[in-house]
Amino acid sequence: MGNRAYLEGVAKGTVPAPPISKLLGFRLVEAGDGRAVFELTPGEHLYNPIGVVHGGVAATLLDSAMGCAVHTKLPDRGAYTTLDIHTHLVRAIHASTGVLRCEGEVVHMGRSMATAQARLVDAAGKLYAHGSSTCLILPGPGQS
Amino acid sequence: MGNRAYLEGVAKGTVPAPPISKLLGFRLVEAGDGRAVFELTPGEHLYNPIGVVHGGVAATLLDSAMGCAVHTKLPDRGAYTTLDIHTHLVRAIHASTGVLRCEGEVVHMGRSMATAQARLVDAAGKLYAHGSSTCLILPGPGQS
Amino acid sequence: MGNRAYLEGVAKGTVPAPPISKLLGFRLVEAGDGRAVFELTPGEHLYNPIGVVHGGVAATLLDSAMGCAVHTKLPDRGAYTTLDIHTHLVRAIHASTGVLRCEGEVVHMGRSMATAQARLVDAAGKLYAHGSSTCLILPGPGQS
Amino acid sequence: MGNRAYLEGVAKGTVPAPPISKLLGFRLVEAGDGRAVFELTPGEHLYNPIGVVHGGVAATLLDSAMGCAVHTKLPDRGAYTTLDIHTHLVRAIHASTGVLRCEGEVVHMGRSMATAQARLVDAAGKLYAHGSSTCLILPGPGQS
Repeated sequence: MGNRAYLEGVAKGTVPAPPISKLLGFRLVEAGDGRAVFELTPGEHLYNPIGVVHGGVAATLLDSAMGCAVHTKLPDRGAYTTLDIHTHLVRAIHASTGVLRCEGEVVHMGRSMATAQARLVDAAGKLYAHGSSTCLILPGPGQS
Repeated sequence: MGNRAYLEGVAKGTVPAPPISKLLGFRLVEAGDGRAVFELTPGEHLYNPIGVVHGGVAATLLDSAMGCAVHTKLPDRGAYTTLDIHTHLVRAIHASTGVLRCEGEVVHMGRSMATAQARLVDAAGKLYAHGSSTCLILPGPGQS
Repeated sequence: MGNRAYLEGVAKGTVPAPPISKLLGFRLVEAGDGRAVFELTPGEHLYNPIGVVHGGVAATLLDSAMGCAVHTKLPDRGAYTTLDIHTHLVRAIHASTGVLRCEGEVVHMGRSMATAQARLVDAAGKLYAHGSSTCLILPGPGQS
Repeated sequence: MGNRAYLEGVAKGTVPAPPISKLLGFRLVEAGDGRAVFELTPGEHLYNPIGVVHGGVAATLLDSAMGCAVHTKLPDRGAYTTLDIHTHLVRAIHASTGVLRCEGEVVHMGRSMATAQARLVDAAGKLYAHGSSTCLILPGPGQS
């Protein structure tokens, strides 16, 4: 299955979501031209010892949205790998925060590398985390 | 419970591990003076769509080890919050990679901020990810 | 002199630019509500051994634009300090690239910390670098 | 001139230092196997508006030391380009701080990417900044 069909299938639910999505409870809701959106319903299963959602969960969502945004810009059999994830945590996330939306977009698409950025916001648009990443574009057809 | 007793309790197993640790399968194995070590047994439950462990899992472990290392340097009722997590992913992690060890250490401990770094290695010492973080030291007794 | 008057003065040229600006050849051209713009005319005096402008020059401009953007959101006697600068370099800069414009904007303004992002583009809007930073907001009147 | 001869020549002073080194006042003092050391004598020519050395100067030194450390691990005609520079600023630098030493080392050397880290310390070993970077290893002989 090519990149386009795969992403459309995951967003529509006709292709099964990957294990990490099911485990943490996030889902791809949109993937377009250089852009991808995930949603997460935070819960106590994601809490760290301080009683808030672990910062790594925000990093995971940002990484998913940025990687998927880069994915949409690849040739149909192209592949990439993420080199760097940079996450700014700006507000604590609780079970009561409600559904979070993570919007990723490509900032630069080169032949051998790409960069992307993403924001994690609640239903009112309040910001909880943001970040950027660097991806290596792999030569030739890949398995992504 | 103060910071010291809490960290010792989690490492010994007399204090329950936080929900995120149980969900992803990582555990605190050591916490000392400006240093903390976590372990994770990677499995397919952590896989992303490409069939490798999601990069966010490495970010979560690095963040845990760095945050916990900072935690060991706080006054007994002190608290901190993580502002930034920066993750370099250098090798793919598979279920067959075996137990990973994540060692975090404080790099700078100031009055109002701290920085830390961490490395994620397998049993042979091979590196899979590394990173750094910035923490804000909260004034007065906190709830961490 | 308060923050507002200082920034307006530097942008207008009635307050002398700081030494580093003169040395590298960059200048503040606009500073508004949570936003700041600098310009640089790249030249061979900024070259690294490979014959392109050193990546640290891009980091310096991004840091200036992001810090200045945060500065515009402070109370008139408030101060901040930068904790982290993260720079993505996406294209080489040459003397022939012409005037570069660096636009910084605040992403999150909290009581004790702020984050900002910036982009470095040429006259045609082509992107050369982008990044983000984390600032600590200092309590009470400061000297910035 | 190959990479080895070039780096040895710059460290010995038989090859001229690049323009940016002269402008800011830093110099390569050692370059070995996966490791490089630069020195800088801070002065008021590097000051930002707050009257301390601009954070971009620390970023420039860290980037130089990390890039040069990667450079020492390349094949003699190999080349690289820096994708990301991440800088933690932990103490203000003044003209009175005296000579600073910036030590960079390779953390991971792969076929297509490398990561490095660096620390900026004074004569007493006190830390002022630290960071990490990601480099893309360019295929075939290059011009670096």
